[in-house]
Amino acid sequence: MATLNLQQARDAVAQALRAAGANDTMAGATARALVLAEAQGIGSHGLGRVAQYTTHLRNGRVNGNAVPTLRHAKGGAALIDAHEGLAFAACEMAVAEAIARAREFGISIAGVANSHHCGVVVDHLRAAAAAGMVGLGFANSPAAMPAAGGRHPIFGTNPVAAVFPRRDAAPLMIDLSLSEAARGKVMVAAKQGKPIPVGWALDKEGLPTTDAQAALEGSMLPVGAASSPKGAMLALVVELLVTALIGAQFGFEASSFFEDAGNRPRIGQAFIVIDPGALAGSAGYLDRIEVLVSEMLRDEGVRLPGARREHLRLEAEQKGIAVPDALLG
Amino acid sequence: MATLNLQQARDAVAQALRAAGANDTMAGATARALVLAEAQGIGSHGLGRVAQYTTHLRNGRVNGNAVPTLRHAKGGAALIDAHEGLAFAACEMAVAEAIARAREFGISIAGVANSHHCGVVVDHLRAAAAAGMVGLGFANSPAAMPAAGGRHPIFGTNPVAAVFPRRDAAPLMIDLSLSEAARGKVMVAAKQGKPIPVGWALDKEGLPTTDAQAALEGSMLPVGAASSPKGAMLALVVELLVTALIGAQFGFEASSFFEDAGNRPRIGQAFIVIDPGALAGSAGYLDRIEVLVSEMLRDEGVRLPGARREHLRLEAEQKGIAVPDALLG
Repeated sequence: MATLNLQQARDAVAQALRAAGANDTMAGATARALVLAEAQGIGSHGLGRVAQYTTHLRNGRVNGNAVPTLRHAKGGAALIDAHEGLAFAACEMAVAEAIARAREFGISIAGVANSHHCGVVVDHLRAAAAAGMVGLGFANSPAAMPAAGGRHPIFGTNPVAAVFPRRDAAPLMIDLSLSEAARGKVMVAAKQGKPIPVGWALDKEGLPTTDAQAALEGSMLPVGAASSPKGAMLALVVELLVTALIGAQFGFEASSFFEDAGNRPRIGQAFIVIDPGALAGSAGYLDRIEVLVSEMLRDEGVRLPGARREHLRLEAEQKGIAVPDALLG
Repeated sequence: MATLNLQQARDAVAQALRAAGANDTMAGATARALVLAEAQGIGSHGLGRVAQYTTHLRNGRVNGNAVPTLRHAKGGAALIDAHEGLAFAACEMAVAEAIARAREFGISIAGVANSHHCGVVVDHLRAAAAAGMVGLGFANSPAAMPAAGGRHPIFGTNPVAAVFPRRDAAPLMIDLSLSEAARGKVMVAAKQGKPIPVGWALDKEGLPTTDAQAALEGSMLPVGAASSPKGAMLALVVELLVTALIGAQFGFEASSFFEDAGNRPRIGQAFIVIDPGALAGSAGYLDRIEVLVSEMLRDEGVRLPGARREHLRLEAEQKGIAVPDALLG
């Protein structure tokens, strides 16, 4: 383990990805995203993913030669083809398209088809916030959760993200998966032989379980599933937005990211970008969001979404991040 | 109580609204929406709302002379002003604008500012599904729920709705509020002197409570709040989309709908409409949604969202609905 500055860390990650067959565009975009996640303290989407991505590159689950293309566009809608590469360059391209189109048409959607794991969804939207735009992001992932009332996994944990820019402050950055708990937490419990709480998972027969190993063989539950089907309904909405609507594969058609072998997942992402200037007006929007933020901060326990991550990122800009020896060439 | 066919029921509701000061446009649109909700078995948003709306009209909380207008538009974005009238005519206009603009630009957003209670959000999106479009709907409501980590109500219960059209079947219709439980259920428990489950509400000091009366004086909790801040984060996203972005008031600025006196709430709605023809292509979309539906229905316990309501609606088309004597002129 060594502490590197962020540019050195990006170089090290890009080098590892290139060595596994990624082209320069893919390696560069992926390295930027993983180091950004690591810098924000999001270990589950940081440098720990390099081994998974390089394995997928070497095993053909990712097309290392892919360069994303704009497949077609109409007005505010654009469809990006990731060509079965890693997702990051395609997501960068999608959000850039979406920003340009929202500026012209007030709102835009850019879908990414034939894609792969897209990391921290809200990070893709940072560019929208920097352009003064509101952004929404959605993605699916290999099947992990059942439909409402169902017993077998269909939907991914299907993250939802949003950015809302502010005038003199970091944007509000919301980013959440629609599962009650992260699968990583179940893996940790299984390794330690510890139980998991009720409401996290079903076993492979579709029955509630507190056995972490049984949960890994079954399904994760949507947020709030112990008492409500609402999380599962939201997962359905996200699944359809990023698949049927844009031509990507369903979560139940994709092999798990945690399998070394398996298919090219060809899952999807979608980014919606909205220009406040086309609706309330940018000045009005920027004034009003501060009114809401002030009202939220009247309660001591409230932390603004994204603030902690942004604090860690700024700290990492100064102090660098720890990079494992395996990435130090 | 008498059983009327749906047109007779609409006429009776419109007549009651006109008698309270609503103009013809407002009375007609509101009557269509309330009878549609009642026909679907959604009593909380059906004929039982007539008394509330007429009280608001008589007390000046609603401008009975309002006729919604298109305040401005740019590409896929349109802003409708409800002029402090009842919301339904403005929402009809917004979705019609959104459909036309999505057809031209691939995606659209229509915001409604200076608005009021909009009833069953997904019903506004039926027109989008009928036009072959995917629709998303959002609304806020008077403050009922705290921010994540907070203790006082800021956000409304902030519904989220979506429609996904199908080829030879009713669209999937998702419609949920982001509170764990409906406030109406707490009201019933309070009347009966019964406790409510943990996770439904906080008291006015911001502490968890199972006392229904204390809950009514405090806050409702977001979905899944007993174990996760995700519901509160989603409520924040919805709140900002329908207020700062489009120029409507926050939930904490609006008097409760359950107060006879109080301000004109001037809350907001937003509808996003997306043309699959601009992304995956309509035929591809329609093929693929059937693949997902089939996979969902492999589990016996799964019911498609909106199916039960649609069944009841078709039944009511034949048999009519029960209309209280107070509306029978």
